[in-house]
Amino acid sequence: MKDNVIVIFGASGDLTARKLIPALFNNFRKGRLPERTHIIGFSRTRFTDDAFREKMRDAVQTFAPRDFSSDTWTDFAPLLHYQPGDLARHNDFGALEQLIHAVTGGECNRLYYLATAPEFYALAVTMLGTTGMAAETEKTGYRRVIVEKPFGHDHASSVALNATLHDVFSEQQIYRIDHYLGKETVQNILVFRFGNAIFEPLWNRRYVDHVQITVAETVGVGHRAAFYESAGVLRDMFQNHLLQLLTLIAMEPPYTYEADALRNEKVKVLQAVRPVDEDRFLRDVVLGQYAGYREEKGVSPRSETPTYAAVRLLIDNWRWQGVPFYLRSGKKLAQKASEITVVFRRPPHQLFGDHCEFFTNRLTICIQPNEGLHLRFSAKVPDEGMVMQAANMGFSYEKSFAERVIPEAYERLLLDALNGDPSLFARSDEIEYAWKIVDSIHSAWEKNPEYHVQQYEPGSWGPKAADQMLTRTGGHWTHGCGALDEVG
Amino acid sequence: MKDNVIVIFGASGDLTARKLIPALFNNFRKGRLPERTHIIGFSRTRFTDDAFREKMRDAVQTFAPRDFSSDTWTDFAPLLHYQPGDLARHNDFGALEQLIHAVTGGECNRLYYLATAPEFYALAVTMLGTTGMAAETEKTGYRRVIVEKPFGHDHASSVALNATLHDVFSEQQIYRIDHYLGKETVQNILVFRFGNAIFEPLWNRRYVDHVQITVAETVGVGHRAAFYESAGVLRDMFQNHLLQLLTLIAMEPPYTYEADALRNEKVKVLQAVRPVDEDRFLRDVVLGQYAGYREEKGVSPRSETPTYAAVRLLIDNWRWQGVPFYLRSGKKLAQKASEITVVFRRPPHQLFGDHCEFFTNRLTICIQPNEGLHLRFSAKVPDEGMVMQAANMGFSYEKSFAERVIPEAYERLLLDALNGDPSLFARSDEIEYAWKIVDSIHSAWEKNPEYHVQQYEPGSWGPKAADQMLTRTGGHWTHGCGALDEVG
Repeated sequence: MKDNVIVIFGASGDLTARKLIPALFNNFRKGRLPERTHIIGFSRTRFTDDAFREKMRDAVQTFAPRDFSSDTWTDFAPLLHYQPGDLARHNDFGALEQLIHAVTGGECNRLYYLATAPEFYALAVTMLGTTGMAAETEKTGYRRVIVEKPFGHDHASSVALNATLHDVFSEQQIYRIDHYLGKETVQNILVFRFGNAIFEPLWNRRYVDHVQITVAETVGVGHRAAFYESAGVLRDMFQNHLLQLLTLIAMEPPYTYEADALRNEKVKVLQAVRPVDEDRFLRDVVLGQYAGYREEKGVSPRSETPTYAAVRLLIDNWRWQGVPFYLRSGKKLAQKASEITVVFRRPPHQLFGDHCEFFTNRLTICIQPNEGLHLRFSAKVPDEGMVMQAANMGFSYEKSFAERVIPEAYERLLLDALNGDPSLFARSDEIEYAWKIVDSIHSAWEKNPEYHVQQYEPGSWGPKAADQMLTRTGGHWTHGCGALDEVG
Repeated sequence: MKDNVIVIFGASGDLTARKLIPALFNNFRKGRLPERTHIIGFSRTRFTDDAFREKMRDAVQTFAPRDFSSDTWTDFAPLLHYQPGDLARHNDFGALEQLIHAVTGGECNRLYYLATAPEFYALAVTMLGTTGMAAETEKTGYRRVIVEKPFGHDHASSVALNATLHDVFSEQQIYRIDHYLGKETVQNILVFRFGNAIFEPLWNRRYVDHVQITVAETVGVGHRAAFYESAGVLRDMFQNHLLQLLTLIAMEPPYTYEADALRNEKVKVLQAVRPVDEDRFLRDVVLGQYAGYREEKGVSPRSETPTYAAVRLLIDNWRWQGVPFYLRSGKKLAQKASEITVVFRRPPHQLFGDHCEFFTNRLTICIQPNEGLHLRFSAKVPDEGMVMQAANMGFSYEKSFAERVIPEAYERLLLDALNGDPSLFARSDEIEYAWKIVDSIHSAWEKNPEYHVQQYEPGSWGPKAADQMLTRTGGHWTHGCGALDEVG
């Protein structure tokens, strides 16, 4: 059995400290890291191994305080090494190669993690190619690369990045990460839909009125203004997280739970999404910007960057014809919440009479916080005549699996990459089709130059126009995951 | 507006003290009893009005202690009157008539409640007829009669009793009570099924594997041996409660929530139930008797009276063809529980692979105790690969409607009878078809004279053979309402 080496490019950055090392530490603590695994940090900062270890120790204590223990750290620390270097210098890759040899004593499996700023992805990949460090044979052990988001800036740049990657790596060596797919509740969508017999019969245009997908943040742009100004919420959140959730909720059952079968079905959903054109733009897209955004450091005082978007998408296939999917995401909203709500049609016939109020059935999948499920239904009010009220059946992930701590998404994804399971990573075509959808919105906006981002109050649920998008057809946005027992 | 008089025949009995007067008291307390309502007790015991009131005060204090208050009682007591009398004597009916006049001062609406022993129903009805007290005109006000269970002893006697009733009352004057239909959770079955859009699509042979209906008691025969010996569990529980639950769970949606539309659909279910014949008897019926029953006071030492039955019924219609309905009820069982469980088929395809255990979906309607709903489904175990576990979505009536106290069934039913709504009462044909089903089991038993009731331990869940009835097809009895959060 070969040694395994994880090389993190961009090891002095935030992601490494906040997510990657805590996730690797936790996998180690749970005995899940393959034996003889070594972790090598690579970036320009000149750390010694010890200095890097010390910094990472602080990171785990800070970002995973519940999991940290000195004893485990003492066992884990020797796995960490550091190689200072510049991505543009062949010599530094040579030094990295030497360190890998020194640490492993010979051929080994390698997982390269691109945790640098995105503009360096292509460079890092090219250098891995020209230095021969990407060549994979049975003798050398595997060579895999994890690419962090954002994956390109639009369709064209994602195609270009895929081309660069494919010059060096074959598709099955590439793991494009969207940490949303590593979340337990996101994976549970598939179990919920296909591990049960009673939801799938309802999961179509015959019974579903519309679907809502919300990923709401309370934070503002923070220190990311430089990046965010040129991205905006559509590139930052829709292209990846929201469209991933859309594919999982809308896809046909794959014939098997394996990476390509799964991703084939996800791609089919993206292919079937009707692009937003010039005409639909004004009706089906609302772009917002929180009041005060233009005063943030690094933001243009005339910025038209949307920090909020609500988009009505249609999926032109047999199952979903005519069922709107409302996606929204924004910063500085009232509540941090990621949730999907399937709103069902009303009962076909009101046999209890017109005086009886009906409550549409809603199934809400709470991704965070309060991971779980709510099913809203009509129940009889006790001690009244035939009077109904909305009631909830609830399931709390945390309460039901009290003995289990819901892990960070990166734990699962790093393990999957080490084990060679790309099911929860995006394939090249997935990324490209997702960009096409986002691009269609941006270019529809360009053709409506009179449209400007609409200001909304921090702490609100976004621009009024986003509410009208739903009230037009008798619906309204729900945000119910905060209160599992909410009735209403 | 006319005065209203409720005459209770059998006013010195248990039912009056335990159920009827507490229910009337509660309706009064809640301001629901129509104005100018008077309650007259009639039976052989010679009470004065005051003695009757005193006895009823004790009854409410004993059986509805939470609801009793001296102040309310003081307001309620004057509504109560008493007429000692013998059901066989015209004179006593004359005295009753005089009392009604004295109390109301003239013509009034009348609701007669037959709370006597069942052998006196026919006599009471005939006397009401011959004394002219059943004649209903607009001028006289309404004349209604509530008939308690048991309604006959078999199909023939129920037909005879219906004939006697119809000699004196028209069908719409007759309210045959099954207090099960007054229970909130039972009424909620209809709201659940037809006030929601998402259950009905699943409610058929395509998705349902089988249905279980359990009405379990922990008590023994008590002081009812004389009656019970000639009745047994099939007559005492199946003909009414269990078959009523069966009709509610299996019926087609009525076009409107009105008594006859509702009862038409219920009757259609009973008509479609395949009678149990000689051949099916040994496979589809298990009759049990708790150990010790033959030693109970008033029970024959060779008694073959079943105190437990489990029956597999089939409904020969389009919706339910091939879906078994397992009904069971018994005394001295492990737990007091009334519940209906719809067990769904397995997912058609195990896309997660054969190593993944599946948990069939089950929807349990808990009628008592812990009124509510559970929906069992498969969820992903957190922090594992694709491993599933059964989880429950739960709804507790009591928790969700915390401000409401779930009322006693009789409260609702008495009010409905006063208001002229027979929806929750049984129509003559309903009763007769239900008896046909029970009769078919008894006569199939007669043709299998070698079959004897099977002893079971008090505190158990009945004879082993009842378990085998389900395990034969891969199922098992569920009894999960005790623990709303139960996972398994």
